[in-house]
Amino acid sequence: MLILMGLNSPREHINQVKEKIISLGCTPHEIPGDSKLAIGITGPSDKVVKEDFLLMPSVEEVVRVSKKYKLVSREMKSEDTLINVNGNIIGGEELLIIAGPCSVESRDQIFDIAGQLKEMGIKFLRAGAYKPRSSPYAFQGLKEKGLEYLADVKKELGMNIVTEALNQNTIEAVCNVADVIQLGARNMQNFTLIEEIGKTQKPILLKRGMSATVEELLLSAEYIVSQNNYNVILCERGIRTFETATRNTLDLNAIPVIKKNSHLPIIVDPSHGVGIWDKIPAMAMASIASGADGLIVEVHPNPEKAFSDGFQSLNPSTFKSLIAKLQELAPVVNKKLTLN
Amino acid sequence: MLILMGLNSPREHINQVKEKIISLGCTPHEIPGDSKLAIGITGPSDKVVKEDFLLMPSVEEVVRVSKKYKLVSREMKSEDTLINVNGNIIGGEELLIIAGPCSVESRDQIFDIAGQLKEMGIKFLRAGAYKPRSSPYAFQGLKEKGLEYLADVKKELGMNIVTEALNQNTIEAVCNVADVIQLGARNMQNFTLIEEIGKTQKPILLKRGMSATVEELLLSAEYIVSQNNYNVILCERGIRTFETATRNTLDLNAIPVIKKNSHLPIIVDPSHGVGIWDKIPAMAMASIASGADGLIVEVHPNPEKAFSDGFQSLNPSTFKSLIAKLQELAPVVNKKLTLN
Amino acid sequence: MLILMGLNSPREHINQVKEKIISLGCTPHEIPGDSKLAIGITGPSDKVVKEDFLLMPSVEEVVRVSKKYKLVSREMKSEDTLINVNGNIIGGEELLIIAGPCSVESRDQIFDIAGQLKEMGIKFLRAGAYKPRSSPYAFQGLKEKGLEYLADVKKELGMNIVTEALNQNTIEAVCNVADVIQLGARNMQNFTLIEEIGKTQKPILLKRGMSATVEELLLSAEYIVSQNNYNVILCERGIRTFETATRNTLDLNAIPVIKKNSHLPIIVDPSHGVGIWDKIPAMAMASIASGADGLIVEVHPNPEKAFSDGFQSLNPSTFKSLIAKLQELAPVVNKKLTLN
Amino acid sequence: MLILMGLNSPREHINQVKEKIISLGCTPHEIPGDSKLAIGITGPSDKVVKEDFLLMPSVEEVVRVSKKYKLVSREMKSEDTLINVNGNIIGGEELLIIAGPCSVESRDQIFDIAGQLKEMGIKFLRAGAYKPRSSPYAFQGLKEKGLEYLADVKKELGMNIVTEALNQNTIEAVCNVADVIQLGARNMQNFTLIEEIGKTQKPILLKRGMSATVEELLLSAEYIVSQNNYNVILCERGIRTFETATRNTLDLNAIPVIKKNSHLPIIVDPSHGVGIWDKIPAMAMASIASGADGLIVEVHPNPEKAFSDGFQSLNPSTFKSLIAKLQELAPVVNKKLTLN
Repeated sequence: MLILMGLNSPREHINQVKEKIISLGCTPHEIPGDSKLAIGITGPSDKVVKEDFLLMPSVEEVVRVSKKYKLVSREMKSEDTLINVNGNIIGGEELLIIAGPCSVESRDQIFDIAGQLKEMGIKFLRAGAYKPRSSPYAFQGLKEKGLEYLADVKKELGMNIVTEALNQNTIEAVCNVADVIQLGARNMQNFTLIEEIGKTQKPILLKRGMSATVEELLLSAEYIVSQNNYNVILCERGIRTFETATRNTLDLNAIPVIKKNSHLPIIVDPSHGVGIWDKIPAMAMASIASGADGLIVEVHPNPEKAFSDGFQSLNPSTFKSLIAKLQELAPVVNKKLTLN
Repeated sequence: MLILMGLNSPREHINQVKEKIISLGCTPHEIPGDSKLAIGITGPSDKVVKEDFLLMPSVEEVVRVSKKYKLVSREMKSEDTLINVNGNIIGGEELLIIAGPCSVESRDQIFDIAGQLKEMGIKFLRAGAYKPRSSPYAFQGLKEKGLEYLADVKKELGMNIVTEALNQNTIEAVCNVADVIQLGARNMQNFTLIEEIGKTQKPILLKRGMSATVEELLLSAEYIVSQNNYNVILCERGIRTFETATRNTLDLNAIPVIKKNSHLPIIVDPSHGVGIWDKIPAMAMASIASGADGLIVEVHPNPEKAFSDGFQSLNPSTFKSLIAKLQELAPVVNKKLTLN
Repeated sequence: MLILMGLNSPREHINQVKEKIISLGCTPHEIPGDSKLAIGITGPSDKVVKEDFLLMPSVEEVVRVSKKYKLVSREMKSEDTLINVNGNIIGGEELLIIAGPCSVESRDQIFDIAGQLKEMGIKFLRAGAYKPRSSPYAFQGLKEKGLEYLADVKKELGMNIVTEALNQNTIEAVCNVADVIQLGARNMQNFTLIEEIGKTQKPILLKRGMSATVEELLLSAEYIVSQNNYNVILCERGIRTFETATRNTLDLNAIPVIKKNSHLPIIVDPSHGVGIWDKIPAMAMASIASGADGLIVEVHPNPEKAFSDGFQSLNPSTFKSLIAKLQELAPVVNKKLTLN
Repeated sequence: MLILMGLNSPREHINQVKEKIISLGCTPHEIPGDSKLAIGITGPSDKVVKEDFLLMPSVEEVVRVSKKYKLVSREMKSEDTLINVNGNIIGGEELLIIAGPCSVESRDQIFDIAGQLKEMGIKFLRAGAYKPRSSPYAFQGLKEKGLEYLADVKKELGMNIVTEALNQNTIEAVCNVADVIQLGARNMQNFTLIEEIGKTQKPILLKRGMSATVEELLLSAEYIVSQNNYNVILCERGIRTFETATRNTLDLNAIPVIKKNSHLPIIVDPSHGVGIWDKIPAMAMASIASGADGLIVEVHPNPEKAFSDGFQSLNPSTFKSLIAKLQELAPVVNKKLTLN
């Protein structure tokens, strides 16, 4: 349920509505936005009587929300959510491009690639310090050391850092370095971790699980937003199908579906989505053409020597050609890509 | 195996090579192309001794083809295949746009939509006369009557007709009307039908089966090309996955994968691929951005009254906006879209 | 819709009901069965007024059928359909076991394995004369020669023959030899072929397509039954999923789902369903335990030398151990397996 | 790599081998078992020279392990792993039957069903105190209160408790009550949680993720066993496919595949695997027939009033009929089911 009130309703009226909601055993949520004053209701909705609210001062409309997810839905909030990361606005006209290696491998490696990316005008660096790996014997990341190098890159080059928090133990350390915390595909339904990261109020990059439906992705986002953290960037990264010619099947249908049903920004990870480097530029272009708000792309100074996922990493020169094409493409879909 | 010979090799030398291939129990295929003279070998390759061919006059190189599919592979023929349909070149710079209703419903309906499409500059009309339907009780198409109306449209409006041949009985009738014969997803592994349609030497639009791998699609194309019919247009139309938010999952990864591995043109059917009309323009744009050679889109004069698949049909005005955007997009990916 | 009439209704009353149905533009179907007299209605049901039929003599009840499939549903016919193939009853207490090689390879091979199977008490021999193959270069079967050998086996050993009709051209030839015609997974939605084979009134083994839903399988069966051929044996043979440890994913859930919703017998093909010989006995046991009416199993005299699918063929001695176990299992699920 | 030594090798020789392994930067693991003395090696195997070990005293053989998973593989340990939970042996001849409601709903509810199950001879009770739910607004379990009731049931009725640990915060509390800790499907690749639960040395029920391959399930088990906790019970619970007639597709192929490749016991959860109560007995039977070591089944005193998953819960009387059938089935597959 959603209560719509006059834009200049007095705080007193707003509080009356919120108190009434609480008295029914539900939770009120003031929905951010410029064009209307809206209060969402979550919880046992069977007790909420529409007419009771319509009688209250300043209340203009009461709307039932049809989806299982509430606060993340367009029904609750029709305007696009814009997320501000150190002055960079995500979800608006400007495309978000996050680039970097799968994992931090050494101080030299991360400075090398970060320097090259910065020179190209890229503002967001991705790199994992903690790596979730199917096998206990695979490279698990440089861990604290990796975070330390990322902090140095941030300080020296002024780049925004996007890196993954794997578990509850490392949230704090990751928070100290990351400008955007990544929640990986395998953790999309690790609800405890989602809630705890949600509470930090940091921007979160929430990746779709490899067999998650769009509805489940939005419900996981709901776990974050229900803690009053609207800084959620969704990320499509490919799903599991029978096709074996590619690592995953990038589900670009999800972009227009999510744009219709949610106000949250959504970006695409073509690197995991296709998994073979020479097909990534084509899928990056397709992602933006489908309406995505940006991309997260694996770029490695030396893909054939990468500790992990080298076969799906672009080298800097291929990536540079790609962003030049993306700059041409952006205005066709009413976006822009500023590189400087 | 592939035998490469000098471009101006005398016919006599070429024939010697072909005879030798036949003598080994294999089949020789002259591969079309301007830049080299190539003869493909299919059949039991264990008897083919590379060195024996290298000794023959005019033979320059002998190449092993690593894929299961041979004649459709880039290894056999590195140049893109261009298909000429009444002067329209498919697979080159110009995008192919095929549009029209799911099925022919009446003389008025098909002339109405064909007229509108022609006015927009569309040259290829799609519409089913014979419809394969999961249920025996669903509308199965106007059949011969439908073909008759299509023949009239062709004659009066000069449009190129794309329509499906469902079975062996109707190949001839369809051939008389169609400029491009569609082979539907359910028939992608109906090898008898494929072979018989292949023999007509007509251009064929071969749709990917709903759970076919890219390799299987190319093997089905191989059935056609092995009869010396290179006029095959592949079509991605969505695959079956667990996602229920859309009718199918459009697998755009398939576009760069096929472009890498085959010389055949590939187009996309976003209408079946996503199955909900308001998401189709986004996926049409994504398809072209991914490198596809064109689109086949369902357009109905009155989608809410369509006999079949109305929910996935664009109305003429939405389609008109889409092609305007496609014209903007085309040059970004080195294509063009001429509407006149 | 289903009209239930008194068991001893006079023919005149029955005909009145059928005529009324026809007059509404629908089709009447007398449903076979001992315990009630039922007439199914298919076609545009919006014109059928329940009350009009209730007023007619001998009509006792009018039932709406909720599924998309009608004649194959339990709602239309609650009793199990029993199919009689030369005195062998399929779909009842006795399990149907069909065994044999993937394809007929030579006269010796087929007589060798048929002889061994007959000695074990197996009454149904499977073997393909026409083989649908993904690649045009793979072994396509011995064709007419293969049918000829099967006819000889039938004549000399008295076995019932189960073999596939691939296309319209070969229906007649296959019909002359086969006691049960197999419709392969790739042809499950080749509706023309289904209808033509249905018309022969021969028993048909209808295999589930590799990405067909249970509903689609039943709708394909409806194409046959709507031609008054109730001799349809359904067959689960594995579906396509992301799992690569096995060739397909055998979907045994389908057995209780189909048993609940349809009166047709259903058997399982564990050979294609799992695709690795040493896992087949376990899945054969699971199939019967799940409630299936029988099995179709690949058995080859010499699996490692098979022309096709050798890796999923049992050798005769493993098969013999399996049927001994099946005989023990059968009574636990109220079935029996007679071998003689 | 696996080092096989004489069964009565002196401890000194064993230690020499282990020290050598450590000196190479790898980890030695003594593999439990009666019939041979085996030391597994995990870590960077490129430094391990087979010949160097063969020269050491008491070393008899050095075997390369071909799978990505090592300690859980049959190559490392050919004998079935038996797990002892308070005198109940899991993985041997006796079938493990775990039954109970999806979640603890009240003291009365859990005592009611536990009492009924105990009377039927069931020794393991399942019930969730913490419930992972896709939506933040769904019932999340009674949490600590739920654990308290389970502790009471355990004390008063003497049943073994199987319950899920959702996150790191609750491991200790769950450990105090549970005899077997469940790791849910959504957490199958929550490696931090797996490792921490693994360290408790408690028996663990590891459920397959909804889109996990068999290989990934075994790699997750490897995370536990590599901490020297061999008490891992694997659980197949259905995977995601395109089929919508059932909640999931129970992949029984996984049973013989895992039995071949791993020594760990595997049970099946037909309740989640099919998701519709009336199809569950058939799939329970199929599971045991396929070779599974047991079942985990949802049984609720009053399914239609369940707080969660009522549609997939059996009522006590249907469950009682099922276990009677399972007792008949068990000896056919060389198992037994003791109810007392």
